[in-house]
Amino acid sequence: MSELANLTTMEVDALTDVEGGLNLTDGHARLDLTPQQSAVVARIPEMFVEATRRPFPSIELAAHTAFLRAIGQHTAPIGTGRILSCYSSTLATDIVARALPVGTTVAVLHPTFDNIADLFVTRGLKLVPLSEEALLAQDWPGPPVGAIVITHPNNPTGLVTPEGHLRSLAEHATRHGQIVIIDASFRGQVPDAQYDTYAVLDAAGTDWITIEDTGKLWPTHELKIGLLAYSERTRLPIERAFSESLLAASPVVLQLVEALALDWVDGGRERASALVERNRAVVRAALDTVGLRLADPHSQISVARVALPEDGPDSSLLYKELLARGVHVLPCAPFHWADPQSGLRFIRISLARPYATVEAAARTLAAAYRELSPAA
Amino acid sequence: MSELANLTTMEVDALTDVEGGLNLTDGHARLDLTPQQSAVVARIPEMFVEATRRPFPSIELAAHTAFLRAIGQHTAPIGTGRILSCYSSTLATDIVARALPVGTTVAVLHPTFDNIADLFVTRGLKLVPLSEEALLAQDWPGPPVGAIVITHPNNPTGLVTPEGHLRSLAEHATRHGQIVIIDASFRGQVPDAQYDTYAVLDAAGTDWITIEDTGKLWPTHELKIGLLAYSERTRLPIERAFSESLLAASPVVLQLVEALALDWVDGGRERASALVERNRAVVRAALDTVGLRLADPHSQISVARVALPEDGPDSSLLYKELLARGVHVLPCAPFHWADPQSGLRFIRISLARPYATVEAAARTLAAAYRELSPAA
Repeated sequence: MSELANLTTMEVDALTDVEGGLNLTDGHARLDLTPQQSAVVARIPEMFVEATRRPFPSIELAAHTAFLRAIGQHTAPIGTGRILSCYSSTLATDIVARALPVGTTVAVLHPTFDNIADLFVTRGLKLVPLSEEALLAQDWPGPPVGAIVITHPNNPTGLVTPEGHLRSLAEHATRHGQIVIIDASFRGQVPDAQYDTYAVLDAAGTDWITIEDTGKLWPTHELKIGLLAYSERTRLPIERAFSESLLAASPVVLQLVEALALDWVDGGRERASALVERNRAVVRAALDTVGLRLADPHSQISVARVALPEDGPDSSLLYKELLARGVHVLPCAPFHWADPQSGLRFIRISLARPYATVEAAARTLAAAYRELSPAA
Repeated sequence: MSELANLTTMEVDALTDVEGGLNLTDGHARLDLTPQQSAVVARIPEMFVEATRRPFPSIELAAHTAFLRAIGQHTAPIGTGRILSCYSSTLATDIVARALPVGTTVAVLHPTFDNIADLFVTRGLKLVPLSEEALLAQDWPGPPVGAIVITHPNNPTGLVTPEGHLRSLAEHATRHGQIVIIDASFRGQVPDAQYDTYAVLDAAGTDWITIEDTGKLWPTHELKIGLLAYSERTRLPIERAFSESLLAASPVVLQLVEALALDWVDGGRERASALVERNRAVVRAALDTVGLRLADPHSQISVARVALPEDGPDSSLLYKELLARGVHVLPCAPFHWADPQSGLRFIRISLARPYATVEAAARTLAAAYRELSPAA
């Protein structure tokens, strides 16, 4: 796996394309700031002063409280010391990977962003796929699987794990002494995913770890926080692994997160969602003109998969044609980390971009597909 | 090693001390902003707008250019793609640790901040110490050592590797096919360390990796960049390891770094240095009153070691007594990662703090020592 390009290397190529081009690769929020978000950003210099005057624990507590309330996680262990603020959700994931005993067999949702699988394999863990179909059928893996990772909502499909399904997984894991790990990086965008997963896991007596992320929600140019929360039962050396990676997140960024979370519950979510849905609609309309469709029509996250029919060009062909036309997207094979072939009929495009960017890219996509398609 | 508290866990304890207390543990810059730095911080909202308008590669290039010129590194590989911007120097170190082949024997300067050793051991590398005495005697290790890590200037001692010594090391490493790794995180503070180490290494034909850091220079509340630069000869999978860790540093932070670097060469270094040296003087004066002294009187970095005589309390005793008095410092045993006993007669205090904090802590240190000392 480590010899092939991963999704992030394609995203880096897009970001560093000196010829410009339209970058619809990464899922990081790159929308224009709303007026309300701009007003928050204007206060950053004050946040610098505040970071000097106010103790770090107080700043961190306020950020955790505002953010976790804004996304419905009312029983998250705020104030207990069991929520660690990291530079990013990727770093939080790596800390979890390091804290798990080497050799542990981990079931990971499939498909999902390849970075989780990469980080886990690099840390010496053994992976087995847990398909979305198995999740929906509540067909949970038993031993030797020691930990089960779900992405909720899933990236790239947008699949939300329903509350009853999570309860079933939690009870199964408790029975078998397994750890449940939730990557909830896209949760903030999706109300259906905002039932209190901490309450569900605790009610079942489960040993759990949850990763939250602010980086997919707000266009703050990588000023973001990944939260790593864990249950009272967790006995893994998480704090030790954290201390190897960082001392602390930025108290300026924590204040930014607090302020944007307060805006989020005050209409900010609806404003951001309107921008993303407008972008999804323009993509859908462009696809319609060439007989293509969104693979996950009900997805509410800020990335979308385009389904490519079996009798047309596959995603690697379309990816190259789009590159030649200056549009960067992601072919989906790497999301299918255990079976790349099964991802060949999908490409992923990010919707968290200015409207003009998405519109131009969607038109180019349709034109490229038309040219490559045998039916043309 | 991994079962004991590391230095960062002590720093986390200090940072999250809910009873307040004086935190002189970590080496992160926590000085008050100078008026010039405040003027830069006031422009952060504009940097947000600029980050949307301007391509990332252009922003990154400007930051690399300004920062590396400000610290004398004129032949660093700016614009070649061989300088990666990371969230922190710690993350850059971990990326290097991951890219080195598992099982490689690495010689690491001793003593030095324990995080380097911890990260390398965690990634499956074998460590051997390279003492400061051996460095000064140009007594370089041969095979099976495959990589040699020096911290320049060293933390906590402030030792600068002289240019001739680095040349000798570079030539030795080239002869033996070894990689030279320089952690230059504190370089920006020390003019003597700002000779062009890239030129020295390249002239000797050495395979090298260099880590630079903005986090020790400017009190920007963890808005910082760790740079990971590598030589044209380097064949390690560094880009792959980078892509597992992050997509990109923040273009806002990169602009902040550029602006602060321009201030640094325009009197900013002298202004910051004056604050640190005033703090070093007040510590020296307080130590004098109880017959203690600085272990490294010529050090120019923003941390200082206090030497404890053999007939008095050792650093673990003094550390505990200071904790009881609400002052957080670092006992030096963990810096001596290969032989903790040899660090027992030193404690480290950070000078990158407001004057009132350092003065109060220095007085408390003297009082605590007087009480514990048998001669009292």
